[in-house]
Amino acid sequence: MNDKIILGIDPGTNIMGYGIIFAKGTKISLIKMGILKLNAKKNQLEKLQDIYETVSQLIMEYTPHEMAIESPFFGKNVQSMLKLGRAQGVSIAAALTHNVPVFEYAPKKVKMAIVGKGAASKEQVAAMLCHIIDNFHQENIPTMDASDAVAIAYCHYLQNSPKIKQKESSSWANFLAKNPDRIVK
Amino acid sequence: MNDKIILGIDPGTNIMGYGIIFAKGTKISLIKMGILKLNAKKNQLEKLQDIYETVSQLIMEYTPHEMAIESPFFGKNVQSMLKLGRAQGVSIAAALTHNVPVFEYAPKKVKMAIVGKGAASKEQVAAMLCHIIDNFHQENIPTMDASDAVAIAYCHYLQNSPKIKQKESSSWANFLAKNPDRIVK
Repeated sequence: MNDKIILGIDPGTNIMGYGIIFAKGTKISLIKMGILKLNAKKNQLEKLQDIYETVSQLIMEYTPHEMAIESPFFGKNVQSMLKLGRAQGVSIAAALTHNVPVFEYAPKKVKMAIVGKGAASKEQVAAMLCHIIDNFHQENIPTMDASDAVAIAYCHYLQNSPKIKQKESSSWANFLAKNPDRIVK
Repeated sequence: MNDKIILGIDPGTNIMGYGIIFAKGTKISLIKMGILKLNAKKNQLEKLQDIYETVSQLIMEYTPHEMAIESPFFGKNVQSMLKLGRAQGVSIAAALTHNVPVFEYAPKKVKMAIVGKGAASKEQVAAMLCHIIDNFHQENIPTMDASDAVAIAYCHYLQNSPKIKQKESSSWANFLAKNPDRIVK
C-alpha cells in the first residue's frame, strides 16, 4: 500500500473540525488538526465561503490524496439539516475543485471502526486515537470537532488498509485456507 | 444601471434547473434555460459532482455577474433537506470558485416579486415571465425547474433595479414629493 495523506472533515454550522493524517504502511501520524469557528455575526453565505476557503487552503497546503467526510445523519430539525447539508456541500466542492476524491462515512461507522461500538462517546474515540496515531495528544485537541475529523480520516484509512481488505476478503482461496476440512481429498 | 447577466439556479436532488438572463437597463432577455437531470443510478457524491461541474461550466460559458439561488424552505423531511442543502452547497461553491457573488431568495419572495402573490403556482409564474422576458416562451420550458430558475434570476434583477429601489425609497424628498400638502408654507 502506498503512503497516503488523508484529510478528514467534520463540517458543522457553527464549528468545522479538520484533521490531516499521514499513513505510511500501517504507521499513522497526525500532520495537523484544528477547527474553524464560524463567525456568528456573518450571514450563512459568508460562513459557507469561509468553510469553502478553509477546506481549499488545507488541500492546497497539505495536498491530501483523499478526503473523508461525515455522511448524513438524522434526527435534527429540517432547518439545521439544510444548513448542515450546505456546509457539507461546499466542503465536498472544495475537494472536487482540486480533484481530491471524496468518501463519506456515517458517524456510527466511524465509532465502530475505532472503538468497536457504534454508540461510543467522542471522548472514548479521542482516547483511542491517542493510542493509535503518532503525534495525536489529548492536550492538543481544541474541541471534539477536531478529534472527530481525525477519527473520520482514520476510519477512511481503515477501509482501504490491506489488513482490513484481507480480513473482509471472501475469496475462494481464503475460504479454503480457513476451512481445510472442506477440501475433498 | 449597468448591463448585467444573472444566473438563476434551482438546485434539486433529482433535477437542477438553471436560467440565464441578460438585463440591459429595464429590458430583460433570456440567454439560456435548461435542466440537469441527475442520474438515479449515480451515488449522491457523483450527483453532487455533476451539479458542481454543470454550474461551473455555465459560469465559464456565460460569465454571469451574479448568481441567485433559492433559499431554504421548510416542511420536507430531514433526509431530503440534507440532500437539498448539499446540492445548494456545491452550487454556491461553484460560484465562489469563480468569484461570482451569490444571493438567495425564498420561493415565496420570488413568486411575490413576479406574480404579486406568494402562493402563486409555478405555471402562473411561467406565464408572467412570458410577458416580461424576451425569448422566454412556454414551449421552450423543459420542466418547471428551468422556469423557476429564470424566475429566481429575474427576482434578483428586480431587487437591484433602479425602478424598485426608487419605489421602495423612503427618503424625505420622496415623502415631500408624494405629500405636498404636508409642507408647511
